[in-house]
Amino acid sequence: MSITRPNGFRAAAAAAGLKKSGKPDLALIVRDGGTGIHAASAAVFTRNQIVGAPVAIAREHRARVLAGSAAPVRAALVNAGNSNSATGEQGLRDARACMEAVAAAIGCPAEEVLPSSTGVIGRLLPAGKITAAVPGLAGALARGEGADSAAAGAIMTTDLVPKPAFREVVIEGYSVKIGAIAKGSGMIAPKLDSALGPPAPSATMLAFITTDAAISSVDLQHALDAACAGSFNRISVDNHPSCSDTALCMASGMAGGAAGAAGGSKPMALIKRGTRAFELFAESLSALCNDLATQIVTDGEGATRIFKVTIRGAASDTAAEQMAREVVNSPLVKCAIHGRDPNWGRIVTAAGNAGIAFDPMEASLKIGPVEVYRAGMPLPEALVDPRLELAMAAKHVECEFTVGKGRGAAWMIGCDLSKDYVSINADYTT
Amino acid sequence: MSITRPNGFRAAAAAAGLKKSGKPDLALIVRDGGTGIHAASAAVFTRNQIVGAPVAIAREHRARVLAGSAAPVRAALVNAGNSNSATGEQGLRDARACMEAVAAAIGCPAEEVLPSSTGVIGRLLPAGKITAAVPGLAGALARGEGADSAAAGAIMTTDLVPKPAFREVVIEGYSVKIGAIAKGSGMIAPKLDSALGPPAPSATMLAFITTDAAISSVDLQHALDAACAGSFNRISVDNHPSCSDTALCMASGMAGGAAGAAGGSKPMALIKRGTRAFELFAESLSALCNDLATQIVTDGEGATRIFKVTIRGAASDTAAEQMAREVVNSPLVKCAIHGRDPNWGRIVTAAGNAGIAFDPMEASLKIGPVEVYRAGMPLPEALVDPRLELAMAAKHVECEFTVGKGRGAAWMIGCDLSKDYVSINADYTT
Repeated sequence: MSITRPNGFRAAAAAAGLKKSGKPDLALIVRDGGTGIHAASAAVFTRNQIVGAPVAIAREHRARVLAGSAAPVRAALVNAGNSNSATGEQGLRDARACMEAVAAAIGCPAEEVLPSSTGVIGRLLPAGKITAAVPGLAGALARGEGADSAAAGAIMTTDLVPKPAFREVVIEGYSVKIGAIAKGSGMIAPKLDSALGPPAPSATMLAFITTDAAISSVDLQHALDAACAGSFNRISVDNHPSCSDTALCMASGMAGGAAGAAGGSKPMALIKRGTRAFELFAESLSALCNDLATQIVTDGEGATRIFKVTIRGAASDTAAEQMAREVVNSPLVKCAIHGRDPNWGRIVTAAGNAGIAFDPMEASLKIGPVEVYRAGMPLPEALVDPRLELAMAAKHVECEFTVGKGRGAAWMIGCDLSKDYVSINADYTT
Repeated sequence: MSITRPNGFRAAAAAAGLKKSGKPDLALIVRDGGTGIHAASAAVFTRNQIVGAPVAIAREHRARVLAGSAAPVRAALVNAGNSNSATGEQGLRDARACMEAVAAAIGCPAEEVLPSSTGVIGRLLPAGKITAAVPGLAGALARGEGADSAAAGAIMTTDLVPKPAFREVVIEGYSVKIGAIAKGSGMIAPKLDSALGPPAPSATMLAFITTDAAISSVDLQHALDAACAGSFNRISVDNHPSCSDTALCMASGMAGGAAGAAGGSKPMALIKRGTRAFELFAESLSALCNDLATQIVTDGEGATRIFKVTIRGAASDTAAEQMAREVVNSPLVKCAIHGRDPNWGRIVTAAGNAGIAFDPMEASLKIGPVEVYRAGMPLPEALVDPRLELAMAAKHVECEFTVGKGRGAAWMIGCDLSKDYVSINADYTT
């Protein structure tokens, strides 16, 4: 179970006819809430200059939620098969028509419905097919494994597997649950914005997170920003952030008492930033997002293996991140990983292209446990070390590149580049 | 004919045993010069933080040539099969040993020999094999088609075809010839530096240009910077600038009189910046570099077709260039070109990832002659226009993305991403 395991949420899926395959392509996730309960929502979106109509609408609503002038998101309506992006004013009208259909079906203001679309870009959304399917979708809302699986499947595009995640943490006597479903396989390199702090991650990745924690929207946004910065923003399949990337978190405030704990009879008090309770919640949310991000890159289009690049010794974390990004996005490095080829010169020169100065004479590279390059010199004995062959053949290849004595460090996770990536993407719309 | 057609140059090639195939892998290009003649040299190099030992040495020599404290490059010794990069102090010693062998064989100071190496990174250069081959190489120096072809072939790595170019221009009664050979197929995205102005282009691309023009090294450097900025720096195969990228131009000053012209009996006067003569020379050099750059991207690893992306209406040329780079480097765009798939949403969203603000409502995209996106809206009739299918199937696909009303514009040329790119690069060293 995933999104309906936290208290206060139901979900459903349907086939609206947007996918050529005829498979389910529409999911609805609804927070039911209750009287006297503190609900909240937070979201992060792509930083692409071209955004889908749903992102434009939801970004505006987010600003008002955080300013206290709008109620939090109550429902997410997600379709696959058409991203409603590069569709101008008509796209906005189509997205609003879908929001209104949901609002009418579940009884809430239309603005509290977050629309989300993934699929081909630059085609008008067949909104009529969606609005026609909404009443049946709303009627099918339910809790449990069936609803969760149906929703996780409906939002898939080129994904080979559904991507659920779940965490549970006890906070001040309450059992706080966090559930999620995500999708993403290609056009993956999330650089999701942040509404508050410095920018967090970018891909079409979509993630829908539910929790029964009691927390304000602003504090939830802080926790989500931090979680995305260390998860979705750390993966890349193809270095092409999408116009639709979205991560949404809805909180119901309906957590119940933990087994053997007292407080469960009254609603949970708000988790506030700066407290241990917030830390616990934020850690769980981060772990959940990391779980989803790893699932996404592992299911990257055509991917057979993933690799993690850690840069250490840089002047700043930002400098380290720029270098790590160059490495995971180099087609040459990705092909070497695919071929299990310990061609480490590609790794160090990719890092050398980030526009960040460092002294090769202070640089060293490890692949798995094997140091292959030290202080600017190759270590030829490494190439015959049997551990290097094992490290290159692992499902998760690990590389650590130290570029100096600074305190800056960062990691990124990428996947290999295979012929299947070409097959999948050379013939996507036709 | 190419590099030995300008007066004052000879070339030769040999097999030193660096390529596993046993094919020729060593080329020598020598300027012979003459008394009272003004010789010159200019060069541009990769901006990668990790540079091959040859680049480190040649960059230092360039600074002294431009400062007037060293004589211009007299000879280029180029090997394929090993890039002598990430090889520390030993790499420098190895490169110097090769320079000294050439200096002894042709009779010049060692610092006037430019070393250049391409091939696998992080392996010590087998300098002994090279120095052993140098005397024979020097003895074989000659002019003519045979020498030019041998040199062009010896510097190839994964190139499928040799890349010669030639231009001739009459300047003030003299017939000025410019010849060149280049190599490059993978690790191609040159961002060559400039010793003088703002930074010019980056890949392992190598280009060796000879001319019999009479020009100072500083003015030649200006002409070369400008030529690279509009050629090598405008191509990308895989967005991974190499640690060895180099373009060298040697000028002999030995141009002879043009047919039917007077002045040919005395040496040509110096071509000076700010004159029409300089313009004519710079234009020819630019055209030659553009020819070489197009040959390189056309022979990109696995490439079947190339595509040119022009961005117009940006706030600045630099902003336009950043957007054009995102488009030619997007694996999703490259796969769409490969599959002749008019999936233009990938083009506009790739441009949207450059971190450059623009308003989609002012944006329009043309593929060949067909407008597919106008003022932020798709033009559905374009998708059934038979000219779109033809434009996507062309050997040179042309895309023009207008992002506003600014005066900034830039173009980049990329190649498609095929399964062969993966085959070539998944198993390069092993």
